[in-house]
Amino acid sequence: MDAKEKCGLYGAFGLENASRYVYQGLFALQHRGQESAGIVSSDGADLASYKGMGLVGEVFSEEVISRLRGTAAIGHVRYSTTGSSNVNNAQPFLIKYSGGEIAVAHNGNLVNAATLRHEYEAQGSIFQTTMDTEIILHILARTHRQGGNGLIEKAIGRVQGAYSLLFITPGEMIAARDPHGFRPLCIGRVGEAWVVASETCAFDITGAQFVREVEPGEVVHFSADGIRSGRILPSGEVKPKYCIFEHIYFARPDSVIFGDSVHEVRKRLGARLAQDAPVDADMVVAIPEGGTSAALGYSEASGLPIDRGFIVNRYVGRTFIKPDAVDRAASAQAKLNVVSEVVRGKRLVVVDDSVVRGTTCRAKMALLRKAGAKEVHFRVTCPPHLYPCFYGIDFPERQELLAVRYNLEEIKEFLKVDSIAYQTLDGMLSCVSNPPDHYCHACFTGRYPVVAGQKTGKFILERTQ
Amino acid sequence: MDAKEKCGLYGAFGLENASRYVYQGLFALQHRGQESAGIVSSDGADLASYKGMGLVGEVFSEEVISRLRGTAAIGHVRYSTTGSSNVNNAQPFLIKYSGGEIAVAHNGNLVNAATLRHEYEAQGSIFQTTMDTEIILHILARTHRQGGNGLIEKAIGRVQGAYSLLFITPGEMIAARDPHGFRPLCIGRVGEAWVVASETCAFDITGAQFVREVEPGEVVHFSADGIRSGRILPSGEVKPKYCIFEHIYFARPDSVIFGDSVHEVRKRLGARLAQDAPVDADMVVAIPEGGTSAALGYSEASGLPIDRGFIVNRYVGRTFIKPDAVDRAASAQAKLNVVSEVVRGKRLVVVDDSVVRGTTCRAKMALLRKAGAKEVHFRVTCPPHLYPCFYGIDFPERQELLAVRYNLEEIKEFLKVDSIAYQTLDGMLSCVSNPPDHYCHACFTGRYPVVAGQKTGKFILERTQ
Amino acid sequence: MDAKEKCGLYGAFGLENASRYVYQGLFALQHRGQESAGIVSSDGADLASYKGMGLVGEVFSEEVISRLRGTAAIGHVRYSTTGSSNVNNAQPFLIKYSGGEIAVAHNGNLVNAATLRHEYEAQGSIFQTTMDTEIILHILARTHRQGGNGLIEKAIGRVQGAYSLLFITPGEMIAARDPHGFRPLCIGRVGEAWVVASETCAFDITGAQFVREVEPGEVVHFSADGIRSGRILPSGEVKPKYCIFEHIYFARPDSVIFGDSVHEVRKRLGARLAQDAPVDADMVVAIPEGGTSAALGYSEASGLPIDRGFIVNRYVGRTFIKPDAVDRAASAQAKLNVVSEVVRGKRLVVVDDSVVRGTTCRAKMALLRKAGAKEVHFRVTCPPHLYPCFYGIDFPERQELLAVRYNLEEIKEFLKVDSIAYQTLDGMLSCVSNPPDHYCHACFTGRYPVVAGQKTGKFILERTQ
Amino acid sequence: MDAKEKCGLYGAFGLENASRYVYQGLFALQHRGQESAGIVSSDGADLASYKGMGLVGEVFSEEVISRLRGTAAIGHVRYSTTGSSNVNNAQPFLIKYSGGEIAVAHNGNLVNAATLRHEYEAQGSIFQTTMDTEIILHILARTHRQGGNGLIEKAIGRVQGAYSLLFITPGEMIAARDPHGFRPLCIGRVGEAWVVASETCAFDITGAQFVREVEPGEVVHFSADGIRSGRILPSGEVKPKYCIFEHIYFARPDSVIFGDSVHEVRKRLGARLAQDAPVDADMVVAIPEGGTSAALGYSEASGLPIDRGFIVNRYVGRTFIKPDAVDRAASAQAKLNVVSEVVRGKRLVVVDDSVVRGTTCRAKMALLRKAGAKEVHFRVTCPPHLYPCFYGIDFPERQELLAVRYNLEEIKEFLKVDSIAYQTLDGMLSCVSNPPDHYCHACFTGRYPVVAGQKTGKFILERTQ
Repeated sequence: MDAKEKCGLYGAFGLENASRYVYQGLFALQHRGQESAGIVSSDGADLASYKGMGLVGEVFSEEVISRLRGTAAIGHVRYSTTGSSNVNNAQPFLIKYSGGEIAVAHNGNLVNAATLRHEYEAQGSIFQTTMDTEIILHILARTHRQGGNGLIEKAIGRVQGAYSLLFITPGEMIAARDPHGFRPLCIGRVGEAWVVASETCAFDITGAQFVREVEPGEVVHFSADGIRSGRILPSGEVKPKYCIFEHIYFARPDSVIFGDSVHEVRKRLGARLAQDAPVDADMVVAIPEGGTSAALGYSEASGLPIDRGFIVNRYVGRTFIKPDAVDRAASAQAKLNVVSEVVRGKRLVVVDDSVVRGTTCRAKMALLRKAGAKEVHFRVTCPPHLYPCFYGIDFPERQELLAVRYNLEEIKEFLKVDSIAYQTLDGMLSCVSNPPDHYCHACFTGRYPVVAGQKTGKFILERTQ
Repeated sequence: MDAKEKCGLYGAFGLENASRYVYQGLFALQHRGQESAGIVSSDGADLASYKGMGLVGEVFSEEVISRLRGTAAIGHVRYSTTGSSNVNNAQPFLIKYSGGEIAVAHNGNLVNAATLRHEYEAQGSIFQTTMDTEIILHILARTHRQGGNGLIEKAIGRVQGAYSLLFITPGEMIAARDPHGFRPLCIGRVGEAWVVASETCAFDITGAQFVREVEPGEVVHFSADGIRSGRILPSGEVKPKYCIFEHIYFARPDSVIFGDSVHEVRKRLGARLAQDAPVDADMVVAIPEGGTSAALGYSEASGLPIDRGFIVNRYVGRTFIKPDAVDRAASAQAKLNVVSEVVRGKRLVVVDDSVVRGTTCRAKMALLRKAGAKEVHFRVTCPPHLYPCFYGIDFPERQELLAVRYNLEEIKEFLKVDSIAYQTLDGMLSCVSNPPDHYCHACFTGRYPVVAGQKTGKFILERTQ
Repeated sequence: MDAKEKCGLYGAFGLENASRYVYQGLFALQHRGQESAGIVSSDGADLASYKGMGLVGEVFSEEVISRLRGTAAIGHVRYSTTGSSNVNNAQPFLIKYSGGEIAVAHNGNLVNAATLRHEYEAQGSIFQTTMDTEIILHILARTHRQGGNGLIEKAIGRVQGAYSLLFITPGEMIAARDPHGFRPLCIGRVGEAWVVASETCAFDITGAQFVREVEPGEVVHFSADGIRSGRILPSGEVKPKYCIFEHIYFARPDSVIFGDSVHEVRKRLGARLAQDAPVDADMVVAIPEGGTSAALGYSEASGLPIDRGFIVNRYVGRTFIKPDAVDRAASAQAKLNVVSEVVRGKRLVVVDDSVVRGTTCRAKMALLRKAGAKEVHFRVTCPPHLYPCFYGIDFPERQELLAVRYNLEEIKEFLKVDSIAYQTLDGMLSCVSNPPDHYCHACFTGRYPVVAGQKTGKFILERTQ
Repeated sequence: MDAKEKCGLYGAFGLENASRYVYQGLFALQHRGQESAGIVSSDGADLASYKGMGLVGEVFSEEVISRLRGTAAIGHVRYSTTGSSNVNNAQPFLIKYSGGEIAVAHNGNLVNAATLRHEYEAQGSIFQTTMDTEIILHILARTHRQGGNGLIEKAIGRVQGAYSLLFITPGEMIAARDPHGFRPLCIGRVGEAWVVASETCAFDITGAQFVREVEPGEVVHFSADGIRSGRILPSGEVKPKYCIFEHIYFARPDSVIFGDSVHEVRKRLGARLAQDAPVDADMVVAIPEGGTSAALGYSEASGLPIDRGFIVNRYVGRTFIKPDAVDRAASAQAKLNVVSEVVRGKRLVVVDDSVVRGTTCRAKMALLRKAGAKEVHFRVTCPPHLYPCFYGIDFPERQELLAVRYNLEEIKEFLKVDSIAYQTLDGMLSCVSNPPDHYCHACFTGRYPVVAGQKTGKFILERTQ
């Protein structure tokens, strides 16, 4: 899989050394962004900030964490494309405006960022980054000038698209989620204190109890006076559009999001595949890590035994020097080696979460063949990817998507497999608990809940720099 | 598990840019040592060396690899205890002596190193490291002075204990294995060229075909003239004593060592446990990564379903700042989180490879309880650890071993589990293919194939520094 | 001396690999700022930027320089106080606004920055740094919205204080200097191409010929169409107020600024001291590096021989671990050791450029005494420092200034010298070529050419963060 | 000057936190070696060691220094040629032998190292570095085996050449100097404690008082029992051969070595040049830093005024990226800029310490011409360099020496100067206090006090690696 999530968020309010909790929480959310990490803390009077490029464990040291003083803090991990991969774009984003200091961390993507940006530029505003998050702060500052209550609610009301947001000011932490709730955002407690995280797996590591999700369209204010809820949109008008791909691929299996256990959803996806696309085979194997839960479900539902076809080399990180840039098979093998004794002479059902470009997938299938697999039947837990995401996931350019380039028969040939089956849309939606129309599946169907401009989202901003 | 392997070896002879193959091979062997890495290459006339502290990907850059020129190279990854963790002790170990230049890389532990060292010191030799490997080079230089053939064979004949060795000189690569063959050492081919590795998983990544193991007591010379075999001990006198713990814990599941697939051995260990220590439960879960293969075997043999009780956070490396040094549960959870939805209300069989100190294990059991597991039945794929290893594995001090401190009932209480069962010695030996007396199991039984001094091995050397 | 200049500037237009020239120029200007360095280059279509904390040679590598493509580039070195010492505040400062991309580098200090900032905040602007330079870009963007010609001239017209500025856009480089010309800014040529630098010493290293200074109140545009001059203020209304302290302390002796050779001015300062404050002594010694030129002048004018009383240890950089934080003498000695054989038994005239806090100075006098000097007559090339600078120099808080705390007799006792004499104001002004009222000497006299608010300049901004 | 000293030494015995003093002392000796630094300390029972590549301030941190515990410590700074520039060759060199632990730091070069090495290799010894220092430790270990008193004295008696040595064992610090005393080595006191250093400038920074030099052929033992002196050679047989080039170039001007103040010797060298090679000129200028003291002497003796022709850019370190590798003039100018106002139209006497290759010198002369100097009369404080040094200084290959390639007239043309004069041998020797035959001047005269093999010293060792 080559898709990239943009971000993970964690906030804590009312805890001694809040930044320490945020640090641990970000560790649990590292899968949501590996290129930069940042924390802003409040000691009640001032905000302190530290950001850097790299993994959480590389950016922060004991000494840095101890300088991020105070009982409230928010943090952010981020993925970004190469072009804009610099510390200027790391979050949280801290500014001063007429209302004082405020910092924000954002997961998602705004579809009207470019439009708003041009509007603000035309009025004389300057932009120092290529993040769509910057526009939120401009709107906030202008809205503040107009006075009145509900500053955050009003300001956010102007942006469209996907956003789970965490704000911090010297006195408050604020969590907000767009009216469709594209990205997850959960509330938890540690004793009397509050924590907020993109996924519940970050609660476990920090000893927090899950309370509820921030509702789509809700703005939750945490302060010394307790918790207070505001709305961007009345809850009656809210139409949830949860990103189904969080369940398929992004979220950690030990998280509960959108009301479902991610692991359980994936097992159901595997079971449904077994039902819809059965095959006469000897054994089920997963493509780790993504296909592991679904392969269990397929095995249970089909009665076929499961075994370990691949072993992950957990030490192959970003530093591996490839023997030859064009030899994808060798590169894939550095991370994932086949257990020949398991697959030799066997008819295999191979389960993976999704296929985007297909090149890495093809290399893995080749490894199975080379190790002596007799038949390879490939099963994918979601439908074919056909459309871009404007709500915070960074897929390759459309012409690079395997299912755009080829029809099913061609894909089978490209991957050199004996059979291939994707999940159906209905099949996929039957594995989650909310009503089918509460999910966004635009990357499969092109049915976009929020209309974006002809060229939208991050792409325009990137190109203008 | 807190036991540490000392080393991994990889060598290549007759390949353009041999150091590049060694680099890849060391990546695949990174699990055998993560504290230092080194490569020595030969361009036919001179040796070039580079060593450093850290993982293979941290120590070597494209630029360094390209400076390690030549068609032959050997490499080494190493674990070491804190006290002697410095680059002086990194290997391969390169010297000049009357025979010219030679470098050596060593996996194992010599039981007569301290005795030989004192003997050599008494004769006026100086020692610059705390590695027992250094004595091998002293012996080699003295032996060379005496002239005659079979230099390596004669020199090695003086040391006792466990050693798989790789030597390189400007013209030769030499692989040697002690007469008991404690540690694995395999020969492979890439086209006409030769490679040698501690485990076969390192062949896969470098596109090599497994040929055979270096036999216990054998010395294999690779040169422009081809391959030539010498003996430390006539093959008839050799008594193999393969380290059974390589199968239990150290080797990668995708390797074949001592004639068996590691993954298959582990599955058999799990299956045997299911037979010897059955339990009325709802589900089998593994402690990843070590218990994963065995849990599959237990599930298959028992008919109990298997599921994912734990999820590994692959980003938690050496950099994690612990929230509180004494809180082992929190620290364990940073690496390994429970999937509550899977274990809640369930009677679990939990399979792990081994238990040494028991403290981390207890923390994991506590996580299962906290997540709502109804019953926890703990199954260990090997017998209780009771004795130190003098042949290259670094267990904790004896008084720290759980099975030394407590009897079975006490261990059950210490771990707070509902039942516990270890594998039997016979059970364990029934899962491997060679005759039972071809294995060393001294860490379980105290039956040492090679007698060591009262205080032996690395410990003496360390203390004298 | 504990005063700190804020910045140095270098720009090149019309040169292949312009960033390479800027890199060299910044090296020559490193004395004007050692905490961060940055370069922005233009390839005619886009701007590329790289900034970092540290010295020029630490921030930039061959690889980074080669990525800063194009035939135009500007660069900046900066000193900053600890509080705001972070890469966010490094310059040049690059933004996008309705007019496209623009970057700016600033040497000086704006006295109405805080006022303007509050005004802009009240209108809804956000600020992301604590630099007063940021307000210039806000004004620029607003001014652009109003349309019309002379954008830079109009925008700069709104700020007050000291500013030498370099702008770069995809098509232009622009150099501007405030109507008083507080800070130097020089124009040079390399063949047909143009360069701009804070001091002429940066021309020498880049093979450039000095042409003229940017005039006070002038804005010089460099583009493909050649050079074009605009005005912030008609030249008839301009009242130059060159910072005399550039000559005393900051500028390099091999530079020509404000029409005078810095070295020659310093020699004249020394000669004038010899005339105004003669002393019956054996020898003149300088406090290197600052007093070296003036000591030559004193020696020539007085006829007293000059010798090397102190030797500088050029290797003591920022990394020296002090033996004991309170022992200033030991710390001073690490950098500057006395040549005992020279000073023993001698009556010395000791010449230094200036005295601010006096603590380091006292330590140096103590070293001379300890080495056996018989008499120490201290001569300072400028008057006593009594007032803060609001135009770009960072002196200590007023109550820390030696001449504020003590009268002349007390200073003599504090420094433990046999006599002391400062330069007079008239004496100082007689050593430079422009009319006396063309210099700013507010740090000595409190006569500020531009009135600042009650609390001004950088101080307010820092405190509000 | 392209000659390189090999090392600087500093030791402390009887001081709390002795390593801290050594750290400071090494800072003062940094000019004697900039490529590696190391300290070994003793807490009375064990030795602790830390070494690294780079400057003292880069290698050691507060934390490392605090781990080097104990009341005795020795340290070393080293220069080395590229080929053998690695941390293995950094000193002090710590070993274990039958006598326990010992470490050594060495300044100088042994002329019989290669011979001894081959002899030891033939007897079965192994060598792990390319340092000639290693042989000393081998001899020490063999000598210890033979028993008897005077171990160090006996062992050192076998090596020939130049050596100032510092040893440390758990209980002793030992300083030794070869019978010719080629390299300096001084003893000082801090209260009741003892310090030893290559030059006295290192005493000043550590608050030590100079006591005396270690005599040629003397071995001084520092222990809890006080100080005790042994001899390698009876003092009556000692023939001092102090390296005159230490005075000319290497030592710091604020040091006293071989009984003379370095600065005073250099002034006398300048004065003697004025007497022997007078010239009708307007002004004397020095090539800093090396020619500064001598230029003062020339000015005083000739009555010609002195001025600053060059300004040093103290920030140009090892990091400067050259604009063009072949353009030496530009590269020279980055470090050293001419003050045009001083030299324009003037007839200059330019004083430098020495000329080795002449290329950098030529670039400096060109800078003076370019700045408008009317005449350039070049004066060198020592005779022409014609021969290699086998006693610890690393000159270029003989065929690269300017005076080997050209005669005086050709050198004048090569440097493009109006006149040139070198110091005479007699003139040079008249400026130091010891009898002329107490100095080694082999690099000028080829008269080697100790005969070396045809190819000797470090060169053989380097080539064999």
